[in-house]
Amino acid sequence: MTLAIDLNADMGESFGPWPMGNDAALLKIISSANIACGFHAGDPDHMARVMRLAVESGVGIGAHPGLMDLQGFGRRRMQVPNETLGNWVRYQLGAARAMAASVGGKVRHLKLHGALGNMTSEDETMARACYEAALDVDPDLTIMVIAATAQQRAAEKLGCAFAAEVFADRAYNDDATLVDRSRPGAVIHDAAFGAERIVKMVKAGAILCDSGKQIPTRIDTICVHGDNAEAVALSTAVRRALEDAGIAVRPI
Amino acid sequence: MTLAIDLNADMGESFGPWPMGNDAALLKIISSANIACGFHAGDPDHMARVMRLAVESGVGIGAHPGLMDLQGFGRRRMQVPNETLGNWVRYQLGAARAMAASVGGKVRHLKLHGALGNMTSEDETMARACYEAALDVDPDLTIMVIAATAQQRAAEKLGCAFAAEVFADRAYNDDATLVDRSRPGAVIHDAAFGAERIVKMVKAGAILCDSGKQIPTRIDTICVHGDNAEAVALSTAVRRALEDAGIAVRPI
Amino acid sequence: MTLAIDLNADMGESFGPWPMGNDAALLKIISSANIACGFHAGDPDHMARVMRLAVESGVGIGAHPGLMDLQGFGRRRMQVPNETLGNWVRYQLGAARAMAASVGGKVRHLKLHGALGNMTSEDETMARACYEAALDVDPDLTIMVIAATAQQRAAEKLGCAFAAEVFADRAYNDDATLVDRSRPGAVIHDAAFGAERIVKMVKAGAILCDSGKQIPTRIDTICVHGDNAEAVALSTAVRRALEDAGIAVRPI
Amino acid sequence: MTLAIDLNADMGESFGPWPMGNDAALLKIISSANIACGFHAGDPDHMARVMRLAVESGVGIGAHPGLMDLQGFGRRRMQVPNETLGNWVRYQLGAARAMAASVGGKVRHLKLHGALGNMTSEDETMARACYEAALDVDPDLTIMVIAATAQQRAAEKLGCAFAAEVFADRAYNDDATLVDRSRPGAVIHDAAFGAERIVKMVKAGAILCDSGKQIPTRIDTICVHGDNAEAVALSTAVRRALEDAGIAVRPI
Repeated sequence: MTLAIDLNADMGESFGPWPMGNDAALLKIISSANIACGFHAGDPDHMARVMRLAVESGVGIGAHPGLMDLQGFGRRRMQVPNETLGNWVRYQLGAARAMAASVGGKVRHLKLHGALGNMTSEDETMARACYEAALDVDPDLTIMVIAATAQQRAAEKLGCAFAAEVFADRAYNDDATLVDRSRPGAVIHDAAFGAERIVKMVKAGAILCDSGKQIPTRIDTICVHGDNAEAVALSTAVRRALEDAGIAVRPI
Repeated sequence: MTLAIDLNADMGESFGPWPMGNDAALLKIISSANIACGFHAGDPDHMARVMRLAVESGVGIGAHPGLMDLQGFGRRRMQVPNETLGNWVRYQLGAARAMAASVGGKVRHLKLHGALGNMTSEDETMARACYEAALDVDPDLTIMVIAATAQQRAAEKLGCAFAAEVFADRAYNDDATLVDRSRPGAVIHDAAFGAERIVKMVKAGAILCDSGKQIPTRIDTICVHGDNAEAVALSTAVRRALEDAGIAVRPI
Repeated sequence: MTLAIDLNADMGESFGPWPMGNDAALLKIISSANIACGFHAGDPDHMARVMRLAVESGVGIGAHPGLMDLQGFGRRRMQVPNETLGNWVRYQLGAARAMAASVGGKVRHLKLHGALGNMTSEDETMARACYEAALDVDPDLTIMVIAATAQQRAAEKLGCAFAAEVFADRAYNDDATLVDRSRPGAVIHDAAFGAERIVKMVKAGAILCDSGKQIPTRIDTICVHGDNAEAVALSTAVRRALEDAGIAVRPI
Repeated sequence: MTLAIDLNADMGESFGPWPMGNDAALLKIISSANIACGFHAGDPDHMARVMRLAVESGVGIGAHPGLMDLQGFGRRRMQVPNETLGNWVRYQLGAARAMAASVGGKVRHLKLHGALGNMTSEDETMARACYEAALDVDPDLTIMVIAATAQQRAAEKLGCAFAAEVFADRAYNDDATLVDRSRPGAVIHDAAFGAERIVKMVKAGAILCDSGKQIPTRIDTICVHGDNAEAVALSTAVRRALEDAGIAVRPI
């Protein structure tokens, strides 16, 4: 028996003339790519380009829909009715599926971006509306959920395929939420420490909170962020540490 | 044996708080709806609403992709590389397919909108790029082409399913192009005259030009426009005249 | 001595090919026009057109900045830092000033639109940030504030010129806030009743709440809405009732 | 008597989360900054930030309006009526003036961006429409024109203040147009060569074409581009070469 886990990162976040992230480098390390769909970032050309790279790298393609807020990169909370959010998810997922098909790939998973991800990790009804919308379009889709949050509860109740996610570079509060970015230590910059911590979580089957508390949870995938300078270093360290511990990195 | 023809109109051209057209009334008359996909008009909520109405009315759903120019309604020519245009078509078609699936429908045809339609009716290479992109996403799609133009030539060479279209409310030049909207008589406002003329075209299997010249062509579908006050009157007259002449109106 | 009051309405809310409201009719009735600035509605062509009409009608021109959310018409609350909101106000006000100058007019007042208006009527710090930003650009600007809310308190503390506004077509709660649109009676559709009520408010110098309670307040301007079918009827009734009561309608 | 010339660069081309260019470094070298105004690039926050830096650096602030095409960075030609282009220029210039005022600066010049710049350097009527629109808003504005093109002719006929511009990093055809970017040698990457060539142009009062031909022209400002890796190196070399030749760098 082999222990295996997925490693995911956001990508395809360039827009028009503006590059973002280091997609080519990350695609050599991760096993699942969450690709922006044009609302908060990404455009048809960038989607096609990154999906082609993902196919060539054997990395699983995911749709990463966000709020209709390009200038704010989908990170500002907006009060949008759940029905409309559902339509935004359907639209972006459909667009991603077409772009993937045209490069010989397929969208295998879906992960909600930014403020949409934050809001749905707190609001199970909203999470359910988004996930039902996605499953309308493709009932076989795997939903990537933030472990031990309203997202996971919504997916469990829907009975759909899902992958529970923990974060390699973020500290946790005692209720399994992420420490706010504005607080010291919220973001882990030390690759070695981050890698060691995540291996412990996977082995323990639990989130390790800052306080030392352990929250048992299913863990299927580890998020490494692609939009900062240390991303490649941390991702590399995480992958090596997992493999050293006998845990293979494989797409969901 | 029954003679049958398709009647198509553009719809779903509302955006956010701004309504456009009379979709509900037109859906009772036409057999194919060309639905805007969010670039030049339309948004996910409006797409879902109109597609639901189309399904309920038994009207065939088509994707109607346009240029990324909302403020200009996709009517301004833009110099965009063919590869990018292809990606725009893929993206919009994919989005439309997802919205259709979520209301129990299916995108059956594709028609290019506005300036993208005009440019591709003159430029066979551009038309081919757009159509290949669409067929990448769905090889069974029917391409709606402006009869006897570069659009039709591109579809013929691709060997794909296509439907050749003539216009109920526009006068024709001797080379099968439309008389420019700025010239008197370019747009036909008289419903009775327009209906009579179109029945003659269908029976003759030819475009009837203003000069009296006839251009033999395949005719599979008739376009009635949805964005002006006379649209419903003209569409009703056209449908009645066709049926009086023993020609049934049926989706492609 | 003449009693006089201002009558204001939102306008210039068309965008690209999509018309909204009945600007030409309202301009014959009101004395101040709040003109959308391109973020939630409006575009440079529509701004120029409506401002030209306002100048010809002798109606005061106001900038009506909103959130950067065209599809949501600026009506969805968004979490945006106050510094960014300030920059959005500056940008839109500057654009409006230029458009006004080019048609021989001048922006005399500023009113915040939609969700930005709602949030700032509850949050004095946010209101202050927006108003300071506007006064940076033009210290002589009159700020139109919703009477007896955080907007008015912010303007009072800034010591700037302001005009306190009551609504002709909306019912009031006992704390001077508007009855939520989802509740029965929230919007007044009866022109005669609305006109009579507003004259009473002006004479009393107080908001008349649904409960019968009176909240004394400065009243400088009355808002009539431009985006519904009854707008012209209500506005006409309000103006006539004011004039019958010896109250002249004049720009601020 | 001192010989002096202006050195200009495009900046403020970041958008939302996407940085572009090296504004802070370039501001230490150039004397005039052409700042994007939100249509093709830039947003209110970035405009405020860059303008503040420009004020601190003593660099002249210019508005750099472009086409309403963010995804294409304003580099795709679009068929837009001249009246609409005029309104786009007014709107963006007004927005820029407000942002400048709020950081204690002032917009001193205007330069058209990208495809709008290219189209107006070929079409004098279009150039005139844009420049008249700008002068409507501020009659004292200096118009930055591409030397010896339709832009310069339009400005001369309008009798407005203008500054004629040559390019430090672009090769010239014999008719004073720029060698197309797709041809070898079109863009000058060698800082030493570029600097030497531009000093020769300034001294000669003429454009030096690739063929060796000289086209006598007024030269008031030199454009160095800010959006490529060599920009800072070339700009530094140009400034040094000018000063070594006894030509001071000063804002227009």
